[in-house]
Amino acid sequence: MTVNPYPLDPERDLELVRDVDVAPELVWRAWTEPELLKQWFAPAPFAVTACTLDLRPGGEFSFTMRTPEGDEFPNGGCFLDVVEGERLVFTECLSAGFRPRHAEIPMTAILELTPNGSGGTTYRAVAIHLDAEGQKAHEEMGFHDGWGAALDQLVALMSKA
Amino acid sequence: MTVNPYPLDPERDLELVRDVDVAPELVWRAWTEPELLKQWFAPAPFAVTACTLDLRPGGEFSFTMRTPEGDEFPNGGCFLDVVEGERLVFTECLSAGFRPRHAEIPMTAILELTPNGSGGTTYRAVAIHLDAEGQKAHEEMGFHDGWGAALDQLVALMSKA
Repeated sequence: MTVNPYPLDPERDLELVRDVDVAPELVWRAWTEPELLKQWFAPAPFAVTACTLDLRPGGEFSFTMRTPEGDEFPNGGCFLDVVEGERLVFTECLSAGFRPRHAEIPMTAILELTPNGSGGTTYRAVAIHLDAEGQKAHEEMGFHDGWGAALDQLVALMSKA
Repeated sequence: MTVNPYPLDPERDLELVRDVDVAPELVWRAWTEPELLKQWFAPAPFAVTACTLDLRPGGEFSFTMRTPEGDEFPNGGCFLDVVEGERLVFTECLSAGFRPRHAEIPMTAILELTPNGSGGTTYRAVAIHLDAEGQKAHEEMGFHDGWGAALDQLVALMSKA
């Protein structure tokens, strides 16, 4: 459902909105090319060690997070909506081919990229949860710091591109 | 992901395949018009008393089932893929706008309609589960009898159309 921009539900959703000095095309590449995504998606000292990205509704989006101690945690889901350069929606509640998937904190994420008029991007990432408890659990897990630090890494990476 | 036909996973999926003497356009209408769906979707003596059908990816698909005792159970999810007259995919794991949703037996369903060459339809409905336990639970709930009886009702209804 391509309602753009997504109307936030403040009781159940979390969002990160920020203007960045990176063009929408470059932000899009950072999100959709596995070799780029691995370099920024996990806030340091965490790292992404593997990534599969099949960019279409029902296509797999999976990645493995490595902790500083070296433990690896596979995670992921599938894409639901893909509008090149503008909008990317994925969920952890389904896996490739839309098969139901177990998620600790069930979440769908929406990325919206809008040209900011000076060459950069208004970057908006929204996490949609089942209920207020899901929102709170995700917030306590460090949504704002984590997604913000990852975005800093994306900007640093793509500013060199 | 419009892989057509959907490749069955016999360990986790359930399917109903049957040739029916109703044209694909009429089967499609029975599935996508609330006033028609209410007349066949629940195997008697169960009934559907309400239905919302927003036919697009992320659009709501909800319905209320009434038991013979008069108890009502709302159920539903959202659509994931809609190819008019051919293919309909919905999941109980997400609700309108792709928000995560709690489902007792998490399921995604795929309906595939193919002209059978003699005016009717090869009707295929597949239920995709999280795992073999989900498959077993849904089978024990009466998948084959329930979906089969509902299809009989669809055929009876649309044969009069």
